[in-house]
Amino acid sequence: ADRIWKQANEKLSGMRVHDILEHNHVAVICTTDDPADSLADHERVAKLGLKTRVYPTFRPDKALGVNAPTAFNVWLERPGGEAKMAVKTFDDLLSALRRRHDDFHAVGGRLSDHGLECALAEPCGQATPQDWAKYGSFLMLEFGRWDAAKGWTKQLHLGAMRNNNTRLLQQLGPDTGFDSVGDFPQGRALSRYLDALDTTGELPRTVLYNLNPGDNYLFATMAGNFQDGSVAGKVQFGSGWWFLDQKEAMEWQMTALSNLGLLSRFVGMLTDSRSFLSYTRHEYFRRVLCNLLGGQMEHGEIPADRELVGKMVRNICFANARDYFRLAVDPTFAH
Amino acid sequence: ADRIWKQANEKLSGMRVHDILEHNHVAVICTTDDPADSLADHERVAKLGLKTRVYPTFRPDKALGVNAPTAFNVWLERPGGEAKMAVKTFDDLLSALRRRHDDFHAVGGRLSDHGLECALAEPCGQATPQDWAKYGSFLMLEFGRWDAAKGWTKQLHLGAMRNNNTRLLQQLGPDTGFDSVGDFPQGRALSRYLDALDTTGELPRTVLYNLNPGDNYLFATMAGNFQDGSVAGKVQFGSGWWFLDQKEAMEWQMTALSNLGLLSRFVGMLTDSRSFLSYTRHEYFRRVLCNLLGGQMEHGEIPADRELVGKMVRNICFANARDYFRLAVDPTFAH
Amino acid sequence: ADRIWKQANEKLSGMRVHDILEHNHVAVICTTDDPADSLADHERVAKLGLKTRVYPTFRPDKALGVNAPTAFNVWLERPGGEAKMAVKTFDDLLSALRRRHDDFHAVGGRLSDHGLECALAEPCGQATPQDWAKYGSFLMLEFGRWDAAKGWTKQLHLGAMRNNNTRLLQQLGPDTGFDSVGDFPQGRALSRYLDALDTTGELPRTVLYNLNPGDNYLFATMAGNFQDGSVAGKVQFGSGWWFLDQKEAMEWQMTALSNLGLLSRFVGMLTDSRSFLSYTRHEYFRRVLCNLLGGQMEHGEIPADRELVGKMVRNICFANARDYFRLAVDPTFAH
Repeated sequence: ADRIWKQANEKLSGMRVHDILEHNHVAVICTTDDPADSLADHERVAKLGLKTRVYPTFRPDKALGVNAPTAFNVWLERPGGEAKMAVKTFDDLLSALRRRHDDFHAVGGRLSDHGLECALAEPCGQATPQDWAKYGSFLMLEFGRWDAAKGWTKQLHLGAMRNNNTRLLQQLGPDTGFDSVGDFPQGRALSRYLDALDTTGELPRTVLYNLNPGDNYLFATMAGNFQDGSVAGKVQFGSGWWFLDQKEAMEWQMTALSNLGLLSRFVGMLTDSRSFLSYTRHEYFRRVLCNLLGGQMEHGEIPADRELVGKMVRNICFANARDYFRLAVDPTFAH
Repeated sequence: ADRIWKQANEKLSGMRVHDILEHNHVAVICTTDDPADSLADHERVAKLGLKTRVYPTFRPDKALGVNAPTAFNVWLERPGGEAKMAVKTFDDLLSALRRRHDDFHAVGGRLSDHGLECALAEPCGQATPQDWAKYGSFLMLEFGRWDAAKGWTKQLHLGAMRNNNTRLLQQLGPDTGFDSVGDFPQGRALSRYLDALDTTGELPRTVLYNLNPGDNYLFATMAGNFQDGSVAGKVQFGSGWWFLDQKEAMEWQMTALSNLGLLSRFVGMLTDSRSFLSYTRHEYFRRVLCNLLGGQMEHGEIPADRELVGKMVRNICFANARDYFRLAVDPTFAH
Repeated sequence: ADRIWKQANEKLSGMRVHDILEHNHVAVICTTDDPADSLADHERVAKLGLKTRVYPTFRPDKALGVNAPTAFNVWLERPGGEAKMAVKTFDDLLSALRRRHDDFHAVGGRLSDHGLECALAEPCGQATPQDWAKYGSFLMLEFGRWDAAKGWTKQLHLGAMRNNNTRLLQQLGPDTGFDSVGDFPQGRALSRYLDALDTTGELPRTVLYNLNPGDNYLFATMAGNFQDGSVAGKVQFGSGWWFLDQKEAMEWQMTALSNLGLLSRFVGMLTDSRSFLSYTRHEYFRRVLCNLLGGQMEHGEIPADRELVGKMVRNICFANARDYFRLAVDPTFAH
């Protein structure tokens, strides 16, 4: 098998991971990591001196999982190990997570990411036991403060209804394709979460990713409530994500943003970094964006000024993200 | 009056019900029937040897109506009569309904249909007394098992907010035009209902009809969670229905299905069988479908291959439904 | 400063408020007024004999504000003063409001307006203390009866989630740009509110303005439940409002109305009368409407009959509103 793999690999010359990264001019990859994950691979990659930088993203979803005690207890053993400290109390857990936040920062990480049904600043509907929601809200506010203090960007991925098929969940485990677009109430909790952090001046740069296109206008207008002039487009309405990263839904997201906020400040496309083949999705995004703007130019809805619109496209496709996320890049990407 | 009717009928030669059925190549009509309804007409029609087959659809909405005791009690007298058994207990009722399910099957019925605000697998919002929801959930799960056991298809018509105008309800009765698109929570209950049946291997073929276009993505992705390989497109995201059977909303439904599922497996248009004039709606559907796909071919979004796309259109407009619903058809329609 | 203002004003000849009103053929302006506001300015303007008539709109949002006692108590002092009566009990308050309703009517007012998260005919979600909802429901039903009795039109502006940013609310006060599109449940409460008034024959002409485009189909179909033949388009699905008064959302609203109701009876665009520069928004609306219908004519979706469609456009842009709102206009606008 090893030989076959090698032969295939030779034939695929120009199609290896590094070729793909080179070909797509990838400045930075951010992986998604549990606070309990080792950063050893990240440290190794950093030493390779690649033009494409690779950083971890702090994704502590499992730290919120007290409502599934069995899985939570299995997980609970791990962050203490990585943080090199004993975890016996909630304060220990918080300290261990905080140390991991520091560790992620030390290897260049500048983003956190959270996958939630809705923002946590209070109970989310009647299905959620209030105690869990309070626990989750406490942690989420802490995480927000840490991000703000270090100049990180927080990503909220809201609205997935997960694990709908119990039979296949038991056979195949989670994240195997049995998730849906949900219809959770989003507005109030999202408002309260952002407001709670803003009130004390601890709201980090935040990107709001929405999975139910029916909530696009809610998200786009909510982002507008928390711009504070400290950084352009501080609260972002994030790109079409998961079920929404296709032409129809990308156009909905960009048109909503264009109508209700500033498209010119948009930090652009996000793709699941686990798949190196997903870079074509960025090309797809760029074409959808150009097609949308080109149509508006043709219809006289925006100025037919290729210079002006072209610059905005280049910003949305690269420069805005480079300037917004504060990730270190290879000097060749700097301008 | 009879004479006038006859004269009019003669003048309408070529426009009689059977002419319309012939002209529209109608293979099967499924009427919607209460379990308490007599099947005598169906038996009579079956003996006529028509090319167009006519079957009943099992629609036990009234069996769930314990929250409106007066109407429920009036209805309760009837199913026992048709099932030829005394109905004194809940078990009697269940047995009577089950016998009717058998009777429907015996005359060729292979579909059930349910009109609900949302799926029943738990209380639906705070407005619903929990006991009613439990009663309804129990019955709906039973009905699902019966359908699965006999290879039927279950149709869920979800999301109507009915009888908004009390004054005209009292004057004119229900189903006289005073219903709305509702905004009920759909996701959790729908997920639980399908999951509960799937867990025991008793999920029948199911078509999910959605009345609020804001839930299209939820429904389309939910259908994807319960495909099990036993039959192509086992859980279907149903066509635009009621307020949604016009171009705009048909395109939304088909585009959602195309983006999130498999348009090629779509069983196509449903029309209210009570109106023989509604067959033009099928023609309208076919034109909307062809217009949509033709536009995508022109824009290079799908292959400009008339053979390939044409075959898919023919499948969506007839063959998929013929193969999916397992209804007996005249041999001339078989292939 | 006065001199500079005068000079600027002279240079702006042709751009003064009265010039703008003249240039835009403005028949009527309705301002939005608290019942506690003085009508002195309205009385003064009425005496000027302007071709453009100016009337107040009764907007008693603050009368519902018992859930914010401090602000409510400040406000409570005022309506009694304007109504020239002491307000010590709830009955006093009701009488004072009623007198103001009469006063508004006397100076030509024929509209009321309410800005609410959702209609009030019952508790609105669990976040609302039930007592407040009952108080609000009581008042809203009263207001509806008053409007019906005098032949007024009630406007319901539903769905805004206000004051999301506490920090800037405290710095800048309310209505300074920190509001969002909300995702409140709308259907049930709206149905009950309209139904409660209709049941006793006291439903006034009503315009339903919706802020969440995901609810368009709900609103458009709800309006259809309460048409009673007394006046064409008695319950209106109102034009795109606030975040929705741009091309995309205007087209959504008009297409929903066209698919689910009667576009030809639409009373057309509403603009915030506080800004005289907002008349261009009416021109924008007219262009969006004509562009939409022109496209449908080109595609053969409506008759390519300029006479027929042109008349509908003129009705939507002026005559429908003139006939619907029952506001006195200058004779030159009468036909």
